Amino acid sequence: MNTVHVTASRCYDVKIGRGLLDALGQELAAIAKGKVLIVTDENVAPLYLARAYQSLTKAGFCVATTCVPAGENSKDIKYYVNLLNLLADKNFTRSDTLVALGGGVVGDLTGFVAATYLRGVRFVQVPTTLLAMVDSSVGGKTAVNLSSGKNQVGAFHQPSLVLCDPELLDTLPEDVFKAGCAEVIKTAILFDSVLFDHLYANGLDFDRDRVITRCVECKRDIVCADEFDNGQRQLLNLGHTIAHGIEKMTDFIIPHGMAVAIGCAIFARAFAVDSEKIVEAFEKFGLPTRTEFSAEVLANAALSDKKRQGDTITLVVVNMVGNCELRAVKISDLTNIIKAGL
Amino acid sequence: MNTVHVTASRCYDVKIGRGLLDALGQELAAIAKGKVLIVTDENVAPLYLARAYQSLTKAGFCVATTCVPAGENSKDIKYYVNLLNLLADKNFTRSDTLVALGGGVVGDLTGFVAATYLRGVRFVQVPTTLLAMVDSSVGGKTAVNLSSGKNQVGAFHQPSLVLCDPELLDTLPEDVFKAGCAEVIKTAILFDSVLFDHLYANGLDFDRDRVITRCVECKRDIVCADEFDNGQRQLLNLGHTIAHGIEKMTDFIIPHGMAVAIGCAIFARAFAVDSEKIVEAFEKFGLPTRTEFSAEVLANAALSDKKRQGDTITLVVVNMVGNCELRAVKISDLTNIIKAGL
Repeated sequence: MNTVHVTASRCYDVKIGRGLLDALGQELAAIAKGKVLIVTDENVAPLYLARAYQSLTKAGFCVATTCVPAGENSKDIKYYVNLLNLLADKNFTRSDTLVALGGGVVGDLTGFVAATYLRGVRFVQVPTTLLAMVDSSVGGKTAVNLSSGKNQVGAFHQPSLVLCDPELLDTLPEDVFKAGCAEVIKTAILFDSVLFDHLYANGLDFDRDRVITRCVECKRDIVCADEFDNGQRQLLNLGHTIAHGIEKMTDFIIPHGMAVAIGCAIFARAFAVDSEKIVEAFEKFGLPTRTEFSAEVLANAALSDKKRQGDTITLVVVNMVGNCELRAVKISDLTNIIKAGL
Repeated sequence: MNTVHVTASRCYDVKIGRGLLDALGQELAAIAKGKVLIVTDENVAPLYLARAYQSLTKAGFCVATTCVPAGENSKDIKYYVNLLNLLADKNFTRSDTLVALGGGVVGDLTGFVAATYLRGVRFVQVPTTLLAMVDSSVGGKTAVNLSSGKNQVGAFHQPSLVLCDPELLDTLPEDVFKAGCAEVIKTAILFDSVLFDHLYANGLDFDRDRVITRCVECKRDIVCADEFDNGQRQLLNLGHTIAHGIEKMTDFIIPHGMAVAIGCAIFARAFAVDSEKIVEAFEKFGLPTRTEFSAEVLANAALSDKKRQGDTITLVVVNMVGNCELRAVKISDLTNIIKAGL
């Protein structure tokens, strides 16, 4: 088992290792007691909910469970309100704990509930997708969606523990696994050319434990340096300005990871000296690198994203693998930049 | 004009002085530019919204306004969702500002929207009630209500500026002014026997500018010492464990301040050596100090409050004016404690 320690407004461990799902109760008992609500989705529940439940009850917790539909629509703010009412109905107090058992949707939703119920209760992430393991479960960004856009409402609220069990990836549909690979490649482009070369050389057969751990370390480093996203953390948005627009315009039929691959490829082609290699890496994983949307449509969608600040928008520019930077550009220049990368 | 500087996760000034409402635009221009949404209620709008609007537009801001019904019911979470959608519809970005023009309800609601829209935007408090000036507008506690209870959902989010214009109190209905006096007396009981003596001696004719400033200083001191309510800040809950129950059970017909007076009086009678003087002070202001609810009913209502932690609840015990302390008591003892103070 690997442990990555995160030092932010709350300090906590991210543990990566096979068998951690069944150790959930024991791991949580080391830091908490009281009641637990497990939030999961309809895809994950039949696979892993019973094991999580048993592990927690065996460790002495009083456990309740709730299940949201699978998919991005469960990040609609109405599910947030439903979960808050559920916690109140069950008399959850500040000493109790939420467990997010699922992918990024379940983690973001549960995290935002935990951030705001009673002005903040403890929560634990048990990510079940690659994307959630390497990205969304670490760092404390929580959010829900408004009808006008993705992650428009949220809070920074660090988990108290993250347990990544790579065994859970064995049941992941191939497309969902690939979507997670997009965030892995994104991390490599941003921070680590050695990791990039490993991914480029091995494709989908990469060393899972090692790669997950390395991605979590990269994320940890940037979160520790800029927890509240006022500077360098915005690098993690590489490709996301485009991605959020594509997701929204396709009503989330194109999932987050696929959209991120397209967004990264567009910004690589627009700026990077080694854009061919970058685009090839995504292609080796069977990820899309093109979109049918025009530059005008993509630019327009990007402007409703929260990365806009008045008349400018901050983009993540890829100079080359391992060398990216933030650049504020005028909104009026955005269409031409995207056009250059299509 | 008096200025109290608050040093918390965000540093800001609380300014107290006549004429500050008309200086809103100028004061905000010193710290922000961009768009502004003024949130107010139906009582305040006809009195002060036009002046706030004019001051801001004169200073160059693009100003939108919205109005919620007056009263605690506007802290229902549905108004929170409505305001979020309004901000998204108007394309508010992270560089824009919310202004809360109203009492505690408007401030708490607007503050929670500001805390979570795009994971946090700037907000300014322009309190129009005594209660909001001396208590709720300072310190960054924001919240909305669930049907199960008051302030069950919220966040810590400090304002960027607070402008208290005591002239606005001239139009306050007498009952609402009196309700605010309960928080003033509470502050004196907790921290300042000299302030208490001034209030006891002068009743409703107290020196408003001086007393508001002194209460803000007391609040500032405790917020700076314990922003996130993990210790001494809980002293500010004096009387509130009872008060929230009374408010909820009467569907907020008994307003917050009146309920706080009752709660403080109950805990004074239960514990304080100078309880007679304390109860008299509330009576001099025409505030209630008794309730028809039984100890059992009050205890039961208190248990759904967020001050409960598992099997214990933390009470604020009044030893005497200027000397109060936190005490964790067993839930099973709560009824008898309340009974002793009825």
